[in-house]
Amino acid sequence: MKLWVNGTAKPVDQPSLSALDRGFTLGDGLFETMRAQEGVVFRLDAHLDRLCAGAQLLGIPLPVDLREHVAAAARGEGEYRNASIRLTVSRGAAPPGLAPPERAEPTVTIVAHPLVRPRVPEPLVAVMAAGRRNEHALTAGVKTLAYTESVVALAQARAAGADDSIFLDTAGHISDATASNLFAVIDDVLVTPPLSCGVLPGITRAAVLELARALGISPVQREMPEPELAAASEIFLTSSIREIAPVVRVETTAVGTGQNGPVTVRIVEAYRALVRLECAT
Amino acid sequence: MKLWVNGTAKPVDQPSLSALDRGFTLGDGLFETMRAQEGVVFRLDAHLDRLCAGAQLLGIPLPVDLREHVAAAARGEGEYRNASIRLTVSRGAAPPGLAPPERAEPTVTIVAHPLVRPRVPEPLVAVMAAGRRNEHALTAGVKTLAYTESVVALAQARAAGADDSIFLDTAGHISDATASNLFAVIDDVLVTPPLSCGVLPGITRAAVLELARALGISPVQREMPEPELAAASEIFLTSSIREIAPVVRVETTAVGTGQNGPVTVRIVEAYRALVRLECAT
Repeated sequence: MKLWVNGTAKPVDQPSLSALDRGFTLGDGLFETMRAQEGVVFRLDAHLDRLCAGAQLLGIPLPVDLREHVAAAARGEGEYRNASIRLTVSRGAAPPGLAPPERAEPTVTIVAHPLVRPRVPEPLVAVMAAGRRNEHALTAGVKTLAYTESVVALAQARAAGADDSIFLDTAGHISDATASNLFAVIDDVLVTPPLSCGVLPGITRAAVLELARALGISPVQREMPEPELAAASEIFLTSSIREIAPVVRVETTAVGTGQNGPVTVRIVEAYRALVRLECAT
Repeated sequence: MKLWVNGTAKPVDQPSLSALDRGFTLGDGLFETMRAQEGVVFRLDAHLDRLCAGAQLLGIPLPVDLREHVAAAARGEGEYRNASIRLTVSRGAAPPGLAPPERAEPTVTIVAHPLVRPRVPEPLVAVMAAGRRNEHALTAGVKTLAYTESVVALAQARAAGADDSIFLDTAGHISDATASNLFAVIDDVLVTPPLSCGVLPGITRAAVLELARALGISPVQREMPEPELAAASEIFLTSSIREIAPVVRVETTAVGTGQNGPVTVRIVEAYRALVRLECAT
Protein backbone atom coordinates (compact mmCIF):
# COMPACT_ATOMS: atom_id res chain seq x y z
CA MET A 1 0.00 0.00 0.00
CA LYS A 2 1.24 3.49 -0.80
CA LEU A 3 -0.02 6.74 0.67
CA TRP A 4 0.20 10.41 -0.24
CA VAL A 5 -1.20 13.16 1.97
CA ASN A 6 -1.58 16.61 0.44
CA GLY A 7 0.80 15.66 -2.33
CA THR A 8 3.56 14.20 -0.16
CA ALA A 9 4.37 10.49 0.15
CA LYS A 10 3.87 9.29 3.73
CA PRO A 11 4.48 6.03 5.57
CA VAL A 12 1.22 4.08 5.83
CA ASP A 13 1.81 2.97 9.41
CA GLN A 14 2.25 6.42 10.91
CA PRO A 15 -0.39 8.98 11.81
CA SER A 16 -0.84 11.63 9.14
CA LEU A 17 -4.29 13.10 9.87
CA SER A 18 -5.57 15.50 12.50
CA ALA A 19 -8.12 14.02 14.90
CA LEU A 20 -10.08 17.22 14.17
CA ASP A 21 -10.31 16.46 10.46
CA ARG A 22 -13.95 16.91 9.46
CA GLY A 23 -13.66 13.89 7.20
CA PHE A 24 -13.20 11.87 10.37
CA THR A 25 -15.60 13.72 12.64
CA LEU A 26 -18.51 14.40 10.25
CA GLY A 27 -17.99 12.52 6.99
CA ASP A 28 -17.46 16.01 5.57
CA GLY A 29 -15.75 15.11 2.33
CA LEU A 30 -15.80 13.09 -0.86
CA PHE A 31 -13.97 10.23 -2.45
CA GLU A 32 -13.32 8.40 -5.68
CA THR A 33 -12.09 4.85 -6.10
CA MET A 34 -10.39 4.38 -9.44
CA ARG A 35 -8.68 1.60 -11.34
CA ALA A 36 -5.17 2.07 -12.68
CA GLN A 37 -4.25 -0.32 -15.47
CA GLU A 38 -0.63 -0.38 -16.61
CA GLY A 39 -0.07 2.85 -14.69
CA VAL A 40 -2.99 4.76 -16.20
CA VAL A 41 -6.27 5.59 -14.43
CA PHE A 42 -9.34 4.48 -16.36
CA ARG A 43 -11.53 7.54 -17.02
CA LEU A 44 -9.71 9.82 -14.61
CA ASP A 45 -11.49 12.87 -16.01
CA ALA A 46 -14.91 11.37 -15.37
CA HIS A 47 -13.91 10.60 -11.78
CA LEU A 48 -12.60 14.12 -11.25
CA ASP A 49 -15.69 15.66 -12.85
CA ARG A 50 -17.89 13.76 -10.40
CA LEU A 51 -15.64 14.81 -7.52
CA CYS A 52 -15.82 18.45 -8.64
CA ALA A 53 -19.62 18.38 -8.73
CA GLY A 54 -19.67 17.03 -5.17
CA ALA A 55 -17.06 19.55 -4.02
CA GLN A 56 -19.22 22.34 -5.38
CA LEU A 57 -22.26 21.13 -3.40
CA LEU A 58 -20.18 20.79 -0.22
CA GLY A 59 -18.25 24.00 -0.83
CA ILE A 60 -14.85 22.33 -0.56
CA PRO A 61 -12.14 23.93 -2.71
CA LEU A 62 -10.10 21.39 -4.68
CA PRO A 63 -6.33 21.82 -5.18
CA VAL A 64 -5.46 22.83 -8.75
CA ASP A 65 -2.86 20.08 -9.13
CA LEU A 66 -5.20 17.25 -8.10
CA ARG A 67 -5.25 15.59 -11.51
CA GLU A 68 -1.48 15.60 -11.68
CA HIS A 69 -1.15 14.05 -8.21
CA VAL A 70 -3.59 11.24 -8.97
CA ALA A 71 -1.99 10.48 -12.33
CA ALA A 72 1.44 10.40 -10.69
CA ALA A 73 0.22 8.09 -7.92
CA ALA A 74 -1.12 5.72 -10.56
CA ARG A 75 2.19 5.56 -12.45
CA GLY A 76 3.40 2.74 -10.21
CA GLU A 77 5.90 0.00 -10.86
CA GLY A 78 5.75 -3.75 -10.46
CA GLU A 79 2.55 -4.88 -8.75
CA TYR A 80 1.50 -1.21 -8.51
CA ARG A 81 1.09 -1.00 -12.31
CA ASN A 82 -2.40 -2.38 -11.75
CA ALA A 83 -3.92 -0.88 -8.66
CA SER A 84 -6.90 0.62 -6.97
CA ILE A 85 -6.40 4.35 -6.47
CA ARG A 86 -8.50 5.78 -3.69
CA LEU A 87 -8.69 9.58 -3.61
CA THR A 88 -10.20 11.22 -0.54
CA VAL A 89 -10.84 14.94 -0.17
CA SER A 90 -12.14 16.21 3.16
CA ARG A 91 -12.80 19.75 4.33
CA GLY A 92 -9.83 19.43 6.67
CA ALA A 93 -9.33 20.10 10.36
CA ALA A 94 -11.62 22.46 12.26
CA PRO A 95 -12.81 23.08 15.83
CA PRO A 96 -15.90 21.11 16.97
CA GLY A 97 -19.29 22.00 15.52
CA LEU A 98 -21.30 21.28 12.42
CA ALA A 99 -20.83 24.63 10.66
CA PRO A 100 -17.97 24.59 8.14
CA PRO A 101 -15.13 26.97 9.10
CA GLU A 102 -14.80 30.08 6.97
CA ARG A 103 -11.40 29.11 5.69
CA ALA A 104 -10.91 25.40 5.28
CA GLU A 105 -7.67 23.75 4.27
CA PRO A 106 -8.82 20.52 2.65
CA THR A 107 -7.08 17.25 3.30
CA VAL A 108 -6.28 15.20 0.19
CA THR A 109 -5.18 11.60 0.56
CA ILE A 110 -4.35 9.11 -2.18
CA VAL A 111 -3.94 5.41 -1.42
CA ALA A 112 -2.66 2.96 -4.05
CA HIS A 113 -3.23 -0.76 -3.53
CA PRO A 114 -2.25 -3.54 -5.97
CA LEU A 115 -5.21 -5.08 -7.75
CA VAL A 116 -5.42 -8.43 -9.52
CA ARG A 117 -8.26 -8.94 -11.98
CA PRO A 118 -9.77 -12.43 -11.84
CA ARG A 119 -9.67 -14.29 -15.16
CA VAL A 120 -13.45 -14.70 -15.05
CA PRO A 121 -15.61 -12.36 -12.93
CA GLU A 122 -16.61 -14.08 -9.71
CA PRO A 123 -20.34 -14.78 -9.54
CA LEU A 124 -22.06 -13.06 -6.63
CA VAL A 125 -24.90 -13.92 -4.31
CA ALA A 126 -26.96 -10.96 -3.12
CA VAL A 127 -29.51 -10.35 -0.42
CA MET A 128 -31.96 -7.46 -0.12
CA ALA A 129 -30.80 -4.71 2.26
CA ALA A 130 -32.92 -4.19 5.37
CA GLY A 131 -32.82 -0.40 4.88
CA ARG A 132 -33.62 1.92 2.00
CA ARG A 133 -31.55 4.33 -0.08
CA ASN A 134 -32.72 7.94 0.21
CA GLU A 135 -33.37 9.32 -3.26
CA HIS A 136 -34.56 12.53 -1.56
CA ALA A 137 -31.27 13.22 0.23
CA LEU A 138 -29.48 16.52 -0.34
CA THR A 139 -26.41 14.46 -1.17
CA ALA A 140 -28.15 11.80 -3.30
CA GLY A 141 -25.89 10.90 -6.20
CA VAL A 142 -22.86 12.47 -4.48
CA LYS A 143 -20.00 10.21 -3.40
CA THR A 144 -19.56 11.64 0.09
CA LEU A 145 -17.61 9.94 2.88
CA ALA A 146 -20.91 8.98 4.53
CA TYR A 147 -20.76 5.25 3.72
CA THR A 148 -21.88 3.85 7.09
CA GLU A 149 -25.17 2.67 5.61
CA SER A 150 -23.32 0.62 2.98
CA VAL A 151 -20.82 -0.72 5.52
CA VAL A 152 -23.67 -2.06 7.68
CA ALA A 153 -25.55 -3.49 4.68
CA LEU A 154 -22.43 -5.27 3.44
CA ALA A 155 -21.68 -6.67 6.89
CA GLN A 156 -25.26 -7.97 7.12
CA ALA A 157 -24.93 -9.57 3.66
CA ARG A 158 -21.69 -11.29 4.69
CA ALA A 159 -23.29 -12.49 7.92
CA ALA A 160 -26.06 -14.05 5.80
CA GLY A 161 -23.47 -15.84 3.65
CA ALA A 162 -23.93 -13.48 0.69
CA ASP A 163 -21.54 -11.16 -1.17
CA ASP A 164 -23.56 -7.96 -1.37
CA SER A 165 -26.82 -6.23 -0.50
CA ILE A 166 -29.27 -4.70 -2.96
CA PHE A 167 -31.03 -1.52 -1.84
CA LEU A 168 -34.49 -0.31 -2.75
CA ASP A 169 -35.12 3.43 -2.67
CA THR A 170 -37.82 4.77 -0.35
CA ALA A 171 -40.41 4.44 -3.13
CA GLY A 172 -39.71 0.70 -3.43
CA HIS A 173 -37.72 0.80 -6.66
CA ILE A 174 -34.45 -1.08 -7.10
CA SER A 175 -31.59 1.33 -6.46
CA ASP A 176 -28.09 -0.18 -6.26
CA ALA A 177 -25.79 -2.43 -4.22
CA THR A 178 -23.53 -1.31 -1.37
CA ALA A 179 -20.86 0.15 -3.66
CA SER A 180 -21.98 -0.83 -7.16
CA ASN A 181 -24.60 0.08 -9.70
CA LEU A 182 -27.03 -2.61 -10.80
CA PHE A 183 -28.06 -3.77 -14.27
CA ALA A 184 -30.66 -6.42 -15.10
CA VAL A 185 -31.81 -8.12 -18.29
CA ILE A 186 -35.61 -8.24 -18.21
CA ASP A 187 -37.57 -9.53 -21.21
CA ASP A 188 -34.34 -9.30 -23.23
CA VAL A 189 -33.89 -5.61 -22.41
CA LEU A 190 -30.89 -4.32 -20.45
CA VAL A 191 -32.27 -2.11 -17.68
CA THR A 192 -30.63 0.01 -14.99
CA PRO A 193 -32.23 2.33 -12.43
CA PRO A 194 -32.17 6.04 -13.33
CA LEU A 195 -30.25 8.50 -11.13
CA SER A 196 -33.59 9.58 -9.64
CA CYS A 197 -33.62 6.29 -7.67
CA GLY A 198 -30.80 7.57 -5.48
CA VAL A 199 -27.99 5.81 -7.34
CA LEU A 200 -24.51 7.24 -7.87
CA PRO A 201 -23.66 8.27 -11.42
CA GLY A 202 -21.16 5.41 -11.67
CA ILE A 203 -18.19 5.74 -14.00
CA THR A 204 -18.44 2.04 -14.89
CA ARG A 205 -22.23 2.41 -15.20
CA ALA A 206 -21.73 5.16 -17.80
CA ALA A 207 -19.16 3.07 -19.69
CA VAL A 208 -21.49 0.05 -19.72
CA LEU A 209 -24.34 2.20 -21.08
CA GLU A 210 -22.02 3.41 -23.88
CA LEU A 211 -20.78 -0.09 -24.63
CA ALA A 212 -24.25 -1.59 -24.67
CA ARG A 213 -25.34 1.00 -27.24
CA ALA A 214 -22.22 0.27 -29.32
CA LEU A 215 -23.00 -3.47 -29.14
CA GLY A 216 -26.57 -2.90 -30.34
CA ILE A 217 -28.01 -3.77 -26.91
CA SER A 218 -30.26 -0.74 -26.37
CA PRO A 219 -30.04 -0.07 -22.62
CA VAL A 220 -32.97 1.49 -20.79
CA GLN A 221 -32.83 3.61 -17.63
CA ARG A 222 -36.13 3.19 -15.86
CA GLU A 223 -37.64 2.59 -12.43
CA MET A 224 -37.75 -1.09 -11.52
CA PRO A 225 -40.23 -2.15 -8.85
CA GLU A 226 -38.72 -4.82 -6.56
CA PRO A 227 -40.66 -7.81 -8.00
CA GLU A 228 -38.98 -7.25 -11.39
CA LEU A 229 -35.71 -8.57 -9.98
CA ALA A 230 -37.24 -12.04 -9.80
CA ALA A 231 -38.12 -11.75 -13.49
CA ALA A 232 -34.55 -10.89 -14.55
CA SER A 233 -32.71 -13.44 -16.67
CA GLU A 234 -29.40 -11.74 -15.85
CA ILE A 235 -28.24 -9.31 -13.18
CA PHE A 236 -24.81 -7.74 -12.86
CA LEU A 237 -23.19 -5.16 -10.63
CA THR A 238 -20.73 -2.52 -11.81
CA SER A 239 -18.00 -0.56 -10.06
CA SER A 240 -14.49 0.63 -10.84
CA ILE A 241 -12.89 -2.14 -8.78
CA ARG A 242 -15.38 -4.93 -9.41
CA GLU A 243 -15.89 -3.82 -13.03
CA ILE A 244 -18.74 -6.13 -14.13
CA ALA A 245 -19.75 -8.91 -11.75
CA PRO A 246 -22.71 -11.24 -12.36
CA VAL A 247 -25.27 -11.85 -9.61
CA VAL A 248 -26.36 -15.48 -9.88
CA ARG A 249 -28.66 -15.59 -6.88
CA VAL A 250 -30.79 -13.04 -4.98
CA GLU A 251 -31.79 -14.32 -1.55
CA THR A 252 -32.86 -17.93 -2.33
CA THR A 253 -33.83 -17.34 -5.97
CA ALA A 254 -31.42 -18.23 -8.80
CA VAL A 255 -31.08 -15.55 -11.48
CA GLY A 256 -31.80 -17.02 -14.92
CA THR A 257 -29.85 -20.25 -15.31
CA GLY A 258 -27.71 -19.43 -12.25
CA GLN A 259 -24.70 -19.03 -14.59
CA ASN A 260 -23.13 -16.01 -16.31
CA GLY A 261 -25.71 -14.91 -18.88
CA PRO A 262 -24.94 -14.08 -22.54
CA VAL A 263 -25.42 -10.30 -22.21
CA THR A 264 -23.18 -10.20 -19.14
CA VAL A 265 -20.47 -12.18 -20.94
CA ARG A 266 -20.53 -9.79 -23.91
CA ILE A 267 -20.40 -6.72 -21.69
CA VAL A 268 -17.52 -8.11 -19.61
CA GLU A 269 -15.49 -8.82 -22.73
CA ALA A 270 -16.20 -5.45 -24.30
CA TYR A 271 -15.51 -3.59 -21.04
CA ARG A 272 -12.14 -5.25 -20.56
CA ALA A 273 -11.22 -4.36 -24.14
CA LEU A 274 -12.29 -0.76 -23.53
CA VAL A 275 -10.16 -0.45 -20.40
CA ARG A 276 -7.17 -1.98 -22.21
CA LEU A 277 -7.65 0.46 -25.08
CA GLU A 278 -8.15 3.63 -23.03
CA CYS A 279 -5.34 2.85 -20.61
CA ALA A 280 -2.82 2.07 -23.37
CA THR A 281 0.02 4.58 -23.25
CA MET B 1 -9.06 22.59 22.95
CA LYS B 2 -7.81 19.34 24.48
CA LEU B 3 -7.47 16.01 22.75
CA TRP B 4 -7.09 12.39 23.83
CA VAL B 5 -6.54 9.56 21.35
CA ASN B 6 -7.05 6.02 22.63
CA GLY B 7 -6.76 7.25 26.19
CA THR B 8 -3.58 9.30 25.75
CA ALA B 9 -3.42 13.11 25.73
CA LYS B 10 -2.14 14.39 22.37
CA PRO B 11 -1.25 17.81 20.99
CA VAL B 12 -4.17 19.13 18.91
CA ASP B 13 -1.95 20.52 16.17
CA GLN B 14 -0.15 17.30 15.31
CA PRO B 15 -1.37 14.34 13.27
CA SER B 16 -2.69 11.53 15.42
CA LEU B 17 -4.85 9.47 13.06
CA SER B 18 -4.06 7.03 10.28
CA ALA B 19 -5.13 8.12 6.80
CA LEU B 20 -6.57 4.60 6.53
CA ASP B 21 -8.90 5.11 9.50
CA ARG B 22 -12.33 3.94 8.40
CA GLY B 23 -13.87 6.82 10.32
CA PHE B 24 -12.15 9.07 7.77
CA THR B 25 -12.57 6.91 4.67
CA LEU B 26 -16.12 5.60 5.16
CA GLY B 27 -17.79 7.36 8.09
CA ASP B 28 -17.48 3.96 9.76
CA GLY B 29 -17.97 4.98 13.35
CA LEU B 30 -20.10 6.77 15.90
CA PHE B 31 -19.98 9.83 18.08
CA GLU B 32 -21.52 11.57 21.04
CA THR B 33 -21.37 15.25 21.86
CA MET B 34 -21.86 15.85 25.56
CA ARG B 35 -21.99 18.78 27.92
CA ALA B 36 -19.73 18.91 30.97
CA GLN B 37 -20.90 21.28 33.68
CA GLU B 38 -18.54 21.93 36.59
CA GLY B 39 -16.46 18.97 35.45
CA VAL B 40 -19.33 16.47 35.24
CA VAL B 41 -20.93 15.17 32.04
CA PHE B 42 -24.70 15.58 31.95
CA ARG B 43 -26.28 12.13 31.51
CA LEU B 44 -23.07 10.37 30.56
CA ASP B 45 -24.71 6.96 30.97
CA ALA B 46 -27.47 7.83 28.52
CA HIS B 47 -24.86 8.98 25.97
CA LEU B 48 -22.85 5.79 26.43
CA ASP B 49 -25.97 3.61 26.20
CA ARG B 50 -26.80 5.21 22.85
CA LEU B 51 -23.22 4.75 21.69
CA CYS B 52 -23.29 1.09 22.74
CA ALA B 53 -26.48 0.45 20.78
CA GLY B 54 -24.87 1.96 17.67
CA ALA B 55 -21.64 0.03 18.24
CA GLN B 56 -23.63 -3.17 18.38
CA LEU B 57 -25.28 -2.43 15.02
CA LEU B 58 -21.94 -1.55 13.44
CA GLY B 59 -20.09 -4.38 15.16
CA ILE B 60 -17.46 -2.10 16.67
CA PRO B 61 -16.08 -3.28 20.01
CA LEU B 62 -15.93 -0.52 22.64
CA PRO B 63 -13.02 -0.28 25.09
CA VAL B 64 -14.01 -1.31 28.62
CA ASP B 65 -12.59 1.86 30.19
CA LEU B 66 -14.49 4.26 27.92
CA ARG B 67 -16.69 5.68 30.67
CA GLU B 68 -13.66 6.36 32.84
CA HIS B 69 -11.82 8.14 30.01
CA VAL B 70 -14.76 10.41 29.20
CA ALA B 71 -15.38 11.24 32.84
CA ALA B 72 -11.68 12.04 33.29
CA ALA B 73 -11.61 14.24 30.18
CA ALA B 74 -14.58 16.19 31.57
CA ARG B 75 -12.91 16.85 34.91
CA GLY B 76 -11.23 19.94 33.53
CA GLU B 77 -10.01 23.06 35.25
CA GLY B 78 -10.61 26.75 34.64
CA GLU B 79 -12.54 27.35 31.44
CA TYR B 80 -12.61 23.58 30.86
CA ARG B 81 -14.92 23.09 33.87
CA ASN B 82 -17.76 23.84 31.43
CA ALA B 83 -17.09 22.26 28.08
CA SER B 84 -18.37 20.31 25.15
CA ILE B 85 -16.99 16.78 25.19
CA ARG B 86 -16.96 15.13 21.80
CA LEU B 87 -16.37 11.39 21.85
CA THR B 88 -15.68 9.67 18.53
CA VAL B 89 -15.30 5.92 18.07
CA SER B 90 -14.35 4.62 14.65
CA ARG B 91 -13.62 1.07 13.49
CA GLY B 92 -9.98 2.07 13.12
CA ALA B 93 -7.46 1.70 10.31
CA ALA B 94 -7.88 -0.93 7.60
CA PRO B 95 -6.84 -1.56 3.99
CA PRO B 96 -9.13 -0.12 1.28
CA GLY B 97 -12.53 -1.71 0.73
CA LEU B 98 -15.99 -1.55 2.22
CA ALA B 99 -15.93 -4.84 4.14
CA PRO B 100 -14.92 -4.41 7.79
CA PRO B 101 -11.63 -6.16 8.63
CA GLU B 102 -11.93 -9.29 10.77
CA ARG B 103 -10.01 -7.77 13.62
CA ALA B 104 -10.50 -4.07 14.03
CA GLU B 105 -8.69 -1.90 16.53
CA PRO B 106 -11.11 0.96 17.10
CA THR B 107 -9.93 4.54 17.31
CA VAL B 108 -11.32 6.52 20.24
CA THR B 109 -10.89 10.28 20.32
CA ILE B 110 -12.13 12.71 22.93
CA VAL B 111 -12.06 16.47 22.32
CA ALA B 112 -12.87 18.96 25.08
CA HIS B 113 -13.74 22.52 24.14
CA PRO B 114 -14.76 25.29 26.58
CA LEU B 115 -18.42 26.18 26.42
CA VAL B 116 -20.17 29.31 27.62
CA ARG B 117 -23.91 29.16 28.13
CA PRO B 118 -25.73 32.32 27.01
CA ARG B 119 -27.78 33.98 29.77
CA VAL B 120 -30.90 33.70 27.63
CA PRO B 121 -31.12 31.12 24.81
CA GLU B 122 -30.51 32.80 21.47
CA PRO B 123 -33.63 32.80 19.30
CA LEU B 124 -33.16 30.97 16.00
CA VAL B 125 -34.43 31.43 12.48
CA ALA B 126 -34.94 28.21 10.53
CA VAL B 127 -35.48 27.28 6.91
CA MET B 128 -36.82 24.03 5.50
CA ALA B 129 -34.07 21.67 4.26
CA ALA B 130 -34.04 20.93 0.54
CA GLY B 131 -33.53 17.19 1.21
CA ARG B 132 -35.30 14.63 3.34
CA ARG B 133 -34.27 12.51 6.34
CA ASN B 134 -34.42 8.79 5.65
CA GLU B 135 -36.55 7.13 8.30
CA HIS B 136 -36.03 3.85 6.41
CA ALA B 137 -32.23 3.88 6.68
CA LEU B 138 -30.45 0.94 8.30
CA THR B 139 -28.74 3.49 10.53
CA ALA B 140 -31.81 5.64 11.26
CA GLY B 141 -31.67 6.80 14.86
CA VAL B 142 -27.97 5.90 15.13
CA LYS B 143 -25.43 8.70 15.63
CA THR B 144 -22.95 7.56 13.00
CA LEU B 145 -20.16 9.74 11.60
CA ALA B 146 -22.19 10.16 8.39
CA TYR B 147 -23.16 13.81 8.96
CA THR B 148 -22.55 15.16 5.45
CA GLU B 149 -26.27 15.63 4.87
CA SER B 150 -26.54 17.84 7.96
CA VAL B 151 -23.36 19.74 7.09
CA VAL B 152 -24.80 20.67 3.68
CA ALA B 153 -28.22 21.56 5.11
CA LEU B 154 -26.64 23.80 7.74
CA ALA B 155 -24.43 25.51 5.16
CA GLN B 156 -27.50 26.14 2.99
CA ALA B 157 -29.38 27.58 5.98
CA ARG B 158 -26.47 29.90 6.76
CA ALA B 159 -26.28 30.98 3.13
CA ALA B 160 -29.98 31.87 3.34
CA GLY B 161 -29.34 34.00 6.44
CA ALA B 162 -30.87 31.45 8.82
CA ASP B 163 -29.46 29.50 11.78
CA ASP B 164 -30.63 25.99 11.04
CA SER B 165 -32.55 23.74 8.65
CA ILE B 166 -35.60 21.65 9.50
CA PHE B 167 -35.85 18.26 7.78
CA LEU B 168 -38.97 16.39 6.76
CA ASP B 169 -38.77 12.60 6.55
CA THR B 170 -39.49 10.91 3.21
CA ALA B 171 -43.19 10.62 4.14
CA GLY B 172 -43.44 14.39 4.57
CA HIS B 173 -43.53 14.50 8.37
CA ILE B 174 -41.41 16.91 10.39
CA SER B 175 -38.27 15.11 11.51
CA ASP B 176 -35.57 17.25 13.13
CA ALA B 177 -33.00 20.00 12.54
CA THR B 178 -29.40 19.46 11.41
CA ALA B 179 -28.16 18.39 14.84
CA SER B 180 -31.13 18.98 17.15
CA ASN B 181 -34.49 17.44 17.93
CA LEU B 182 -37.57 19.58 17.42
CA PHE B 183 -40.50 20.34 19.73
CA ALA B 184 -43.57 22.42 18.90
CA VAL B 185 -46.54 23.71 20.87
CA ILE B 186 -49.64 23.13 18.76
CA ASP B 187 -53.09 23.89 20.17
CA ASP B 188 -51.49 24.14 23.61
CA VAL B 189 -50.00 20.63 23.36
CA LEU B 190 -46.23 20.03 23.39
CA VAL B 191 -45.49 17.76 20.43
CA THR B 192 -42.30 16.13 19.16
CA PRO B 193 -41.81 13.69 16.26
CA PRO B 194 -41.58 10.01 17.24
CA LEU B 195 -38.35 8.07 16.57
CA SER B 196 -40.11 6.48 13.57
CA CYS B 197 -39.68 9.81 11.73
CA GLY B 198 -35.94 9.20 11.46
CA VAL B 199 -34.95 11.33 14.44
CA LEU B 200 -32.11 10.54 16.82
CA PRO B 201 -33.13 9.49 20.31
CA GLY B 202 -31.74 12.74 21.72
CA ILE B 203 -30.48 12.83 25.30
CA THR B 204 -31.84 16.36 25.70
CA ARG B 205 -35.06 15.30 23.97
CA ALA B 206 -35.54 12.55 26.57
CA ALA B 207 -34.81 14.97 29.43
CA VAL B 208 -37.31 17.49 28.04
CA LEU B 209 -40.00 14.80 27.78
CA GLU B 210 -39.35 13.87 31.43
CA LEU B 211 -39.36 17.51 32.54
CA ALA B 212 -42.53 18.33 30.64
CA ARG B 213 -44.33 15.45 32.37
CA ALA B 214 -43.00 16.63 35.75
CA LEU B 215 -44.25 20.16 34.99
CA GLY B 216 -47.73 18.88 34.12
CA ILE B 217 -47.23 19.65 30.42
CA SER B 218 -48.23 16.29 28.91
CA PRO B 219 -45.93 15.90 25.90
CA VAL B 220 -47.06 13.92 22.87
CA GLN B 221 -44.86 12.05 20.39
CA ARG B 222 -46.70 11.95 17.10
CA GLU B 223 -46.21 12.44 13.38
CA MET B 224 -46.48 16.09 12.35
CA PRO B 225 -47.30 16.82 8.70
CA GLU B 226 -45.34 19.82 7.46
CA PRO B 227 -48.24 22.33 7.47
CA GLU B 228 -48.59 21.92 11.25
CA LEU B 229 -45.37 23.88 11.75
CA ALA B 230 -47.19 27.01 10.60
CA ALA B 231 -49.84 26.37 13.25
CA ALA B 232 -47.31 26.13 16.09
CA SER B 233 -47.41 28.86 18.75
CA GLU B 234 -43.91 27.83 19.92
CA ILE B 235 -41.08 25.80 18.43
CA PHE B 236 -37.81 24.91 20.08
CA LEU B 237 -34.79 22.78 19.20
CA THR B 238 -32.92 20.59 21.67
CA SER B 239 -29.37 19.26 21.74
CA SER B 240 -26.68 18.68 24.34
CA ILE B 241 -24.77 21.81 23.32
CA ARG B 242 -27.65 24.06 22.37
CA GLU B 243 -29.82 22.69 25.20
CA ILE B 244 -33.18 24.37 24.47
CA ALA B 245 -33.26 27.05 21.78
CA PRO B 246 -36.44 28.76 20.59
CA VAL B 247 -37.18 29.04 16.88
CA VAL B 248 -38.89 32.38 16.32
CA ARG B 249 -39.20 32.23 12.55
CA VAL B 250 -39.46 29.45 9.94
CA GLU B 251 -38.69 30.71 6.45
CA THR B 252 -40.64 34.00 6.35
CA THR B 253 -43.29 33.05 8.92
CA ALA B 254 -42.99 34.20 12.54
CA VAL B 255 -43.66 31.49 15.13
CA GLY B 256 -46.38 32.62 17.56
CA THR B 257 -45.54 36.12 18.77
CA GLY B 258 -42.00 35.87 17.39
CA GLN B 259 -40.72 35.90 20.99
CA ASN B 260 -39.78 33.15 23.44
CA GLY B 261 -43.08 31.46 24.30
CA PRO B 262 -44.26 30.58 27.83
CA VAL B 263 -43.78 26.79 27.49
CA THR B 264 -40.27 27.28 26.11
CA VAL B 265 -39.36 29.62 28.96
CA ARG B 266 -40.56 27.11 31.57
CA ILE B 267 -38.70 24.22 29.93
CA VAL B 268 -35.48 26.24 29.64
CA GLU B 269 -35.61 27.14 33.33
CA ALA B 270 -36.42 23.60 34.45
CA TYR B 271 -33.76 22.10 32.16
CA ARG B 272 -31.04 24.38 33.49
CA ALA B 273 -32.04 23.47 37.04
CA LEU B 274 -31.92 19.78 36.14
CA VAL B 275 -28.43 20.04 34.66
CA ARG B 276 -27.23 21.98 37.71
CA LEU B 277 -28.71 19.33 40.00
CA GLU B 278 -27.45 16.26 38.18
CA CYS B 279 -23.97 17.68 37.60
CA ALA B 280 -23.52 18.75 41.24
CA THR B 281 -20.66 16.80 42.78
